[in-house]
Amino acid sequence: MLTEADIMDYRYPVKGCGVWLPYGFKLRKLILDIIRELLDSTGHHEVLLPTLIPEDMLAKEAEHIRGFEEECFWVTHGGLRPLGVKLALRPTSETAFGPMFKLWIRSHADLPMKLYQVVNIFRYETRATRPLIRMREVLTFKEAHTCHATAEDAEQNVREAVEIYKRFFDELGVPYIISRRPEWDKFAGALYSIAFDMICPDGRVLQIGTVHNLGQNFAKAFEITYERPDGKHEYVWQTCYGISGRVVAAVMAAHGDDHGLVLPPRVAPVQVVVVPIPYKGAEEAVRQASEEAGRLLREAGLRVEVDLRPDITPGEKFYYWERHGVPIRVEIGPRDVERKQATLVRRDTLERKEVPLDQLVEAVKGLLDEITVALRERAWAWMRERVRAVASVEEARAILEEQGGVVELPWCGDDECGRRMQDEVDARALGTPEDEEPKPAGPCPICGREAKTVLRLARTY
Amino acid sequence: MLTEADIMDYRYPVKGCGVWLPYGFKLRKLILDIIRELLDSTGHHEVLLPTLIPEDMLAKEAEHIRGFEEECFWVTHGGLRPLGVKLALRPTSETAFGPMFKLWIRSHADLPMKLYQVVNIFRYETRATRPLIRMREVLTFKEAHTCHATAEDAEQNVREAVEIYKRFFDELGVPYIISRRPEWDKFAGALYSIAFDMICPDGRVLQIGTVHNLGQNFAKAFEITYERPDGKHEYVWQTCYGISGRVVAAVMAAHGDDHGLVLPPRVAPVQVVVVPIPYKGAEEAVRQASEEAGRLLREAGLRVEVDLRPDITPGEKFYYWERHGVPIRVEIGPRDVERKQATLVRRDTLERKEVPLDQLVEAVKGLLDEITVALRERAWAWMRERVRAVASVEEARAILEEQGGVVELPWCGDDECGRRMQDEVDARALGTPEDEEPKPAGPCPICGREAKTVLRLARTY
Repeated sequence: MLTEADIMDYRYPVKGCGVWLPYGFKLRKLILDIIRELLDSTGHHEVLLPTLIPEDMLAKEAEHIRGFEEECFWVTHGGLRPLGVKLALRPTSETAFGPMFKLWIRSHADLPMKLYQVVNIFRYETRATRPLIRMREVLTFKEAHTCHATAEDAEQNVREAVEIYKRFFDELGVPYIISRRPEWDKFAGALYSIAFDMICPDGRVLQIGTVHNLGQNFAKAFEITYERPDGKHEYVWQTCYGISGRVVAAVMAAHGDDHGLVLPPRVAPVQVVVVPIPYKGAEEAVRQASEEAGRLLREAGLRVEVDLRPDITPGEKFYYWERHGVPIRVEIGPRDVERKQATLVRRDTLERKEVPLDQLVEAVKGLLDEITVALRERAWAWMRERVRAVASVEEARAILEEQGGVVELPWCGDDECGRRMQDEVDARALGTPEDEEPKPAGPCPICGREAKTVLRLARTY
Repeated sequence: MLTEADIMDYRYPVKGCGVWLPYGFKLRKLILDIIRELLDSTGHHEVLLPTLIPEDMLAKEAEHIRGFEEECFWVTHGGLRPLGVKLALRPTSETAFGPMFKLWIRSHADLPMKLYQVVNIFRYETRATRPLIRMREVLTFKEAHTCHATAEDAEQNVREAVEIYKRFFDELGVPYIISRRPEWDKFAGALYSIAFDMICPDGRVLQIGTVHNLGQNFAKAFEITYERPDGKHEYVWQTCYGISGRVVAAVMAAHGDDHGLVLPPRVAPVQVVVVPIPYKGAEEAVRQASEEAGRLLREAGLRVEVDLRPDITPGEKFYYWERHGVPIRVEIGPRDVERKQATLVRRDTLERKEVPLDQLVEAVKGLLDEITVALRERAWAWMRERVRAVASVEEARAILEEQGGVVELPWCGDDECGRRMQDEVDARALGTPEDEEPKPAGPCPICGREAKTVLRLARTY
């Protein structure tokens, strides 16, 4: 689908690296516009930091370097000379922001400080790489980094970030579950991590967003302090949260079908394509009516293509634009010209309907809204069926093997029981629900004690 | 000025690397918007390629690698393991586009192909680094790469690119001269290079944009061929052209003054700042009138701040916004409230004028246009005085020593004479004029033969 829809070309001659193609780049931009708007309107400011992080900076927070040292690309030479200090290509930017926050923050009046950047990050993945999902150079990474005066403010900001991501994925119609990752799988250096996951068509689960409460770990490592109103100095409290190019994979996985990509109108680079269906003798009238329809729709503020390519049949054009996920196709043939109408075909259901030309704009706008809602509801309904409360390890294992999705097993809350559940179910623990009250279907299947919560498990990407 | 105006923080702990601050980032974005608009409207498509270039790819074009191998940062390790093939951090992307063009281009119908990306590039500079001007990680690089069916089409595209850059710099009011770089200073791998240069306040010259005709050099190295209508296969003809973060330095240098930054309205993150001048008893009326003025200006589509910060005096606010280059300050005091007027102060001349509140929007818009024109004209007049035709090496040398700028010496066109001129004038050859007919002021001062053109020389950054 990625290649067919001209999103990314994965044939770049470095393993795990791909090229964003023009159409994919436009989709990427429209998606990033949404998250930028959400962040800008909630007091975040966009900045841009360097890619290179000196080894000693990366190593300042002990857990962090342990989590990332095996995964970094290292720059060791400038020209033909070895560098004095090795430079990592950022795997994430906590340690690049660290020394800058130390410089920027003086007093309580500087807090909260909420910054973000959209950059590329690098992970020397030893696991199998996959376009958009697990890459060595991730070309699209939105990372926010914040500093706060108190633990409560940081906690409050984590909740705000979760709300921002909910609105973001809701705009895209991408369904998600929100889980607090287990202790043994949190971000390297965080107090705790909250993650958004989605279920892909093959039943496996994809992490699509994360929010971390960093506490004072990095603040202590980088000596980021502020002066309180009473004159005392204290370390700041930090959070960070990220969204990657995986969000494009998420949109594709949530809505795509056998014909290819299906895009939500808000982010479709082309929202409407007008395809003339010329018959002998009516070519000119059909072309004119198509261009007129295109003009009207464009003037209404929509992103429109009128496909006048010669030498290619209407059928080929249908197939081409379907593959690219364009939400609505407007067909105009001689009969339509005669009747002063057009035929609308919606991409998600392939349903057709005729509308008078003088109602075209309203009809298209109305249909785009319908498609937005329909995509979201269909995707949510599909996902909800695949999150199942189960009582036993055997049942959990069987479901994941046969149907995939997410299972929720009762859990006493003990790390050892959780890890054993992972092993016995042969799946990965996503953590405990952050989006609903956990309802354990019985006692902890490992130790038999009362379950305090549920542990979500899934086969993951 | 860079720090005072919150453009870039250069204290990042890697030499030659800086951080774009929120205000600078907004300025950068508004500037990039212009070039994106110009490129998108002339058939260019934006893409995004990886940063990492394998050593063998970088080395495919022989001149190119010779030009860049001393300047590359090299990634040699992934995690703790050495990589099989060393990876360069792109110093520029001809060799990253190479293998992709080979895949993407099949027939003449695919041509021209005009792509661009906005990325970071890396140069292991051994010369003194400077913020925005010579950095090791250039965080802002717009590079276009095109392929054409014939030498003429490529040539034509070079001319189009020059026109695009002229319009770009004209929008910014940045004056330039356009020169064809001498043979010995062209881009590594190009047939020829055309460059935009500006003169900085200190008299030194800064290269701010380049356009290169690559001929078939890279096409042959990367086997980028297309099928002609007659069925024969031929190598494509290529061009590339780039603009970097230096453009921000150019804007600052072209318009700034002793009070700090002066921004052209089109790219000013804040176009108008409203500053209330409260007096005892009139605080509330002044605040209300200021907010009302802000609302009106914002509704007119302008980027507006109303500076209601308590605890800081109007004078401090004036100074703050002047430093940030905001084109117009609107002051509202008790007398203005009484008379239903506001006082406008333009940043470039610091002239004041009173306008009735009900004409505020038109007055501000008119003044913004005046400022745009005034900045451009002043900067051009200043530069024109500093490009001087001279007849002798001694005169050229004296002028550059005392006043800087650009001198044009008569030149026979012979490379050896040109290089000797560089040495004897103790300056760098910018090349021959592309923006006007050369008018030599005498014979070639080196060999005494008739001058075919002039050679521009300057002390450069």
